[in-house]
Amino acid sequence: MKSESAESTRLEVECRRIAERAKLASSPLAIVSGLRKNDWLLESARAIGDRTDELLESNRRDIEMAPAFGLNPAAIDRLTLSPKRLEGIAQCLREVAALPDPVGEAITSSRRPNGLEVSQIRVPLGVIFMIYESRPNVTVDAAALCVKSGNSVILRGGKEAIHSNRALARVLIDHLGASGLPDHSVQLVDTTDRSAVGHLLALPDKIDLAIPRGGASLIRRVVAEARMPVLKHYDGICHVYVDAGADLEMATSIILNSKVQRPGVCNALETILVHREAASEFLPKLGQVLAEHRVEVRGDELTLNLVAHAVPASSADWDTEYLDLIVAIRVVENLDMALAHIARHGSKHTDAIVTSHLASARRFVREVDSAAVIVNASTRFNDGGQLGLGAEIGISTDKYHARGPCGLRELTTTKWIIQGHGQIRD
Amino acid sequence: MKSESAESTRLEVECRRIAERAKLASSPLAIVSGLRKNDWLLESARAIGDRTDELLESNRRDIEMAPAFGLNPAAIDRLTLSPKRLEGIAQCLREVAALPDPVGEAITSSRRPNGLEVSQIRVPLGVIFMIYESRPNVTVDAAALCVKSGNSVILRGGKEAIHSNRALARVLIDHLGASGLPDHSVQLVDTTDRSAVGHLLALPDKIDLAIPRGGASLIRRVVAEARMPVLKHYDGICHVYVDAGADLEMATSIILNSKVQRPGVCNALETILVHREAASEFLPKLGQVLAEHRVEVRGDELTLNLVAHAVPASSADWDTEYLDLIVAIRVVENLDMALAHIARHGSKHTDAIVTSHLASARRFVREVDSAAVIVNASTRFNDGGQLGLGAEIGISTDKYHARGPCGLRELTTTKWIIQGHGQIRD
Repeated sequence: MKSESAESTRLEVECRRIAERAKLASSPLAIVSGLRKNDWLLESARAIGDRTDELLESNRRDIEMAPAFGLNPAAIDRLTLSPKRLEGIAQCLREVAALPDPVGEAITSSRRPNGLEVSQIRVPLGVIFMIYESRPNVTVDAAALCVKSGNSVILRGGKEAIHSNRALARVLIDHLGASGLPDHSVQLVDTTDRSAVGHLLALPDKIDLAIPRGGASLIRRVVAEARMPVLKHYDGICHVYVDAGADLEMATSIILNSKVQRPGVCNALETILVHREAASEFLPKLGQVLAEHRVEVRGDELTLNLVAHAVPASSADWDTEYLDLIVAIRVVENLDMALAHIARHGSKHTDAIVTSHLASARRFVREVDSAAVIVNASTRFNDGGQLGLGAEIGISTDKYHARGPCGLRELTTTKWIIQGHGQIRD
Repeated sequence: MKSESAESTRLEVECRRIAERAKLASSPLAIVSGLRKNDWLLESARAIGDRTDELLESNRRDIEMAPAFGLNPAAIDRLTLSPKRLEGIAQCLREVAALPDPVGEAITSSRRPNGLEVSQIRVPLGVIFMIYESRPNVTVDAAALCVKSGNSVILRGGKEAIHSNRALARVLIDHLGASGLPDHSVQLVDTTDRSAVGHLLALPDKIDLAIPRGGASLIRRVVAEARMPVLKHYDGICHVYVDAGADLEMATSIILNSKVQRPGVCNALETILVHREAASEFLPKLGQVLAEHRVEVRGDELTLNLVAHAVPASSADWDTEYLDLIVAIRVVENLDMALAHIARHGSKHTDAIVTSHLASARRFVREVDSAAVIVNASTRFNDGGQLGLGAEIGISTDKYHARGPCGLRELTTTKWIIQGHGQIRD
């Protein structure tokens, strides 16, 4: 008992020390030149190539332990590094280096009538605490985006990837000094003790933002415990609504891409809504295509009549993020009913309409209260890279601060600069 | 006991009903035309003129009760309405009507290589809960800014102003329907029971943002209880640093304006830092000018030698927001020491430098981590109107979402609109 509590105190002290070092690093890092940050990104990319053997060896230790953690083959695949995947990780570093530095960018700038020159410029948030699950590439992606935006970062990956994360973080940390960045710009919480997360989330004076990436239970825990803001989304229950008179080939292609291109991600399609007038022509064909792609269909009564292999949807299906080759289908009377369904069951992440009516498109865009609203394209386009942000650290469905895919700009705040020559107020 | 708890349950139910009505109103309000919102603002302004007698009569009831609440003469003055002050309140409504509608404004807009047209547009946050102290004009200002930005608002003023707030809110609410705005776009929490605030702060699904305006204890309570984001600052411990070689006349004029033009506000000066090389010439003269304006000086040892009427500063003085005709003065060795003092004792609100050296100005602007950093001008310029925002609902010293004076744009979030003609992802 006693040694357990001593251990817990020791961990709490260590977490506080990590946070303090991150805060101290954040001041010089905030004003470091973009050249130095890019130098670090490019040198780290090179080092990942040079140290491939060491990185694969560390990864091998995680893979060996994976069955003991109960990881299924898909999860083990996500955890596995290869020379090609390491090259992809290095490439991400080079791409972040190529993005413009958000720090110092002027958002507004004007000369006031009294001659004051005022501008609102981007500055870093400070310290970012990143909590994520098994994929080890997040260690590198997150560090790259945080440091490029002038923020120091505390990384906390999953226990299944501890050896891989440790090795990748070592590469990144090894190059900080040589590039002229503060020593503790990047730190890894090097323990699998779950309570470390709680200790860090209790330090709002040291950590400016927490970003959880993983399953809904991880995110709920972080939101419950965090005393600083959290950038997050819980889940993506994304809809495609097929309007009366829509181009049905286009609808099929968009639905297929939204559902099967990568079913395990948050912007994948989960529920299809079909206007009653389109249903009898559209659903039998769609059902066939979905069957060819081994997608299970759960439908309402009308759908069951039109899709041969459909099984009945329960009321829970409308609120479920499958993240799998399953889709729910409902026939609706009209656009109003589609909007009402999305308002009630959606997660305000990504929703799309397939339509040829301008009025339907306009109403959908105005009235659907989601981070991204899409007309005649795949839900999979709600993505930082696809929208031109370069890279993203996550997607937010909250309204405060940033909403949608979050790139470098979303990791900054602003500062007003007011320059005069002696002006005073009347 | 029993009736007390029944009363408390009744209040909780009523608060939930208010929040639900606000949420329901927020959807149609979010997409209402700017014309209707402006019509409501202008009609309300006219009605304030027409109903002056009724408004003054309600205000009189608050004034009569003010001594019983222990309000001092300054507080009673802030509470008092007059025909001229009512005209000022009506004028504020007209100015908000004249501002551009932030809803629908595109922040970024581009055509992607695959032909997708993507844009990020401003949309309202939803429901805003405004908690404020005695000045009744906040009832009107806050409602105007929230509704203009497409948000429904729940107003909760102080008990000292309940009759004035009720009368002003009535004028605003009376004109909602005629202007085509939803009935519950504006609501007043019409009770002086303090627990109503707690009930509302516990409803993050209904209320998107809480904005407390008042003393630090009010704000601390709101932050402790709120389960939604809070737009706030605790206090404004603002500094003016006078550099070696600064124009000393300019420094005197800026200090005087920053300190005495309106000592009770958050962007007023509290601590003066003076470079050692400037001190012996500057401080005796400054001391004299401050004495003429009845400003009490609390100084460090060097200041005591140079300012005749100065009294010794205690260590607590460096962390105090006087909001009164008192100022603390410290002599520093150099810019580094000034920056260190501000980092340690400032509240990250507003800090100014008076200097003629470009290098000092640049370092100050880069290294002071405050919402507004000012070169050679009064601290009083950190103000929404002065910076060109038109009007402000408050000043934020947080980094998440908005930082500095918050106007209409800061009361919005964004939505990505993606328009295609059948695009899917590779």
